[in-house]
Amino acid sequence: MRVGTIVPPLVGSIRRAAFFCRSAMEPGGGVAMVQGASRGIGLEFVRQLLEKKEKGQVIATCRDPSRASFLQELKGKYTERLDILPLDVTDESSIKASTKSINERYGSLNLLINASGVLSIPGVLQPETTLNKVEKSSLMFAYEVNAAGPTLVIKVFFSNSFSVRLSSHVALLKLGGQTASERKFSIVANLSARVSSIGDNGLGGWHSYRSSKTALNQLTKNISLEFARRKDPIVCILLHPGTVDTDLSKPFQRGVPEGKLFTPEFSVGKLLAVIEGTEASDNGKFFAWDGQQIPW
Amino acid sequence: MRVGTIVPPLVGSIRRAAFFCRSAMEPGGGVAMVQGASRGIGLEFVRQLLEKKEKGQVIATCRDPSRASFLQELKGKYTERLDILPLDVTDESSIKASTKSINERYGSLNLLINASGVLSIPGVLQPETTLNKVEKSSLMFAYEVNAAGPTLVIKVFFSNSFSVRLSSHVALLKLGGQTASERKFSIVANLSARVSSIGDNGLGGWHSYRSSKTALNQLTKNISLEFARRKDPIVCILLHPGTVDTDLSKPFQRGVPEGKLFTPEFSVGKLLAVIEGTEASDNGKFFAWDGQQIPW
Repeated sequence: MRVGTIVPPLVGSIRRAAFFCRSAMEPGGGVAMVQGASRGIGLEFVRQLLEKKEKGQVIATCRDPSRASFLQELKGKYTERLDILPLDVTDESSIKASTKSINERYGSLNLLINASGVLSIPGVLQPETTLNKVEKSSLMFAYEVNAAGPTLVIKVFFSNSFSVRLSSHVALLKLGGQTASERKFSIVANLSARVSSIGDNGLGGWHSYRSSKTALNQLTKNISLEFARRKDPIVCILLHPGTVDTDLSKPFQRGVPEGKLFTPEFSVGKLLAVIEGTEASDNGKFFAWDGQQIPW
Repeated sequence: MRVGTIVPPLVGSIRRAAFFCRSAMEPGGGVAMVQGASRGIGLEFVRQLLEKKEKGQVIATCRDPSRASFLQELKGKYTERLDILPLDVTDESSIKASTKSINERYGSLNLLINASGVLSIPGVLQPETTLNKVEKSSLMFAYEVNAAGPTLVIKVFFSNSFSVRLSSHVALLKLGGQTASERKFSIVANLSARVSSIGDNGLGGWHSYRSSKTALNQLTKNISLEFARRKDPIVCILLHPGTVDTDLSKPFQRGVPEGKLFTPEFSVGKLLAVIEGTEASDNGKFFAWDGQQIPW
């Protein structure tokens, strides 16, 4: 955020304005939100955003903050800079409630990372190895969480019916150690996965997960086009984190070639570098952890 | 279907075997099924499959045959060659029931066209012009009908738990007027749409419809890979019919350039030619009405 930049005030309560000013006046600050932050890649984004930067607010959302012990640990260390809020992507009212809360506290976001996602839940969703294992309930659930969820988060944060807007005229969160360029746009980064690429699909399987992430790619492209058409200063990108050693990938790590199973630290470090290097012309594109563009 | 070819008999009742033989013995015959056939493109597929061929069975499915007046008219003219069965893609038990019925009557299929699809239903689903009009219920409903539906149809028809298999060792339905080549594979053709292409998406909008059809593309690719890996003699393709003058497109025809709004007759004639020209190497590909491949 450009130091001293005054963003047009939002209509709202004095309390909201006060919070807004606190954020806007913070030199080198900015507001990043990580949605789906209780564990795995989302949690690591929160950690690195706090540790690599000296300033700036981080909002971490998850379904149940009271059970998010790792986030609570970080909150102990970064009391002032970290906010933890409940948000369940399958429940639009919870998205709206968090938006309201963020609006009151910050008024704008510089970076929104949608990191929530589901690949398997024992007894509910199992990545299918063959067509005859595909269940309608699995298709629908994966789509609800992986495709509809992030879309509704962006919708609610962007919607004019709420006064929170992804902010304009502010810099991207500056990542530690780098001479971060001041930016004219905010960034929305949706976590996708290489298996969502149809063109790159040579193995098949994982029908529910793949198709939900493929749909997310299309929805993100759609949203990026709307932002561009409206000349909104927001850039949407899709990210492939690689195969990362998290709870999500745990049951499927056998067979990952040596050196290809990344730690969350490594993957998120790379992804933050991709975010940091994002230019306006990257709007609507899909990048791997190493910055390579992934075909649709 | 190769005349006189004896396909290994399926385990089943005498009645089933009798029906099976009737079909297998029919020179130049074959069995085509059009799912979603009560109107629009599906109905036109049924009509042309009956009118352009002298022989061969056509199975037309729709949610409620008693209300499918156009299909009933065709039934009056093609009493012996047309079967109309109830099938609702949102209800897996109805898919299973139709499969059982088709198994008993025919034992195999040479061509399966998934033509069902939804773009708008007043009060339920409206193609979104902007993100703030996207409703979760619309996303979920479009995905259920357009992506999950055809996938479950193929699953049930293919599943080993039912004895119907898309048939092997038989020729594709021969389309009228052409010297149809005998084929070694059956064809599954899923109706997609160019707006499902992410790479080709330059306008945005229609979030629910687009993303559901994009997901269908991925699911079809997935299924095609499984068929190929198992060496099943089935080729899966995706088809874009162009903008066709049907109930589906009716509210959105304004702005279609002159000469670009096709009659169902024209579009389906072209699509049947694409199907007729399909080769084994086309498995998993996405073709427009004019045979051009569409990027993902």
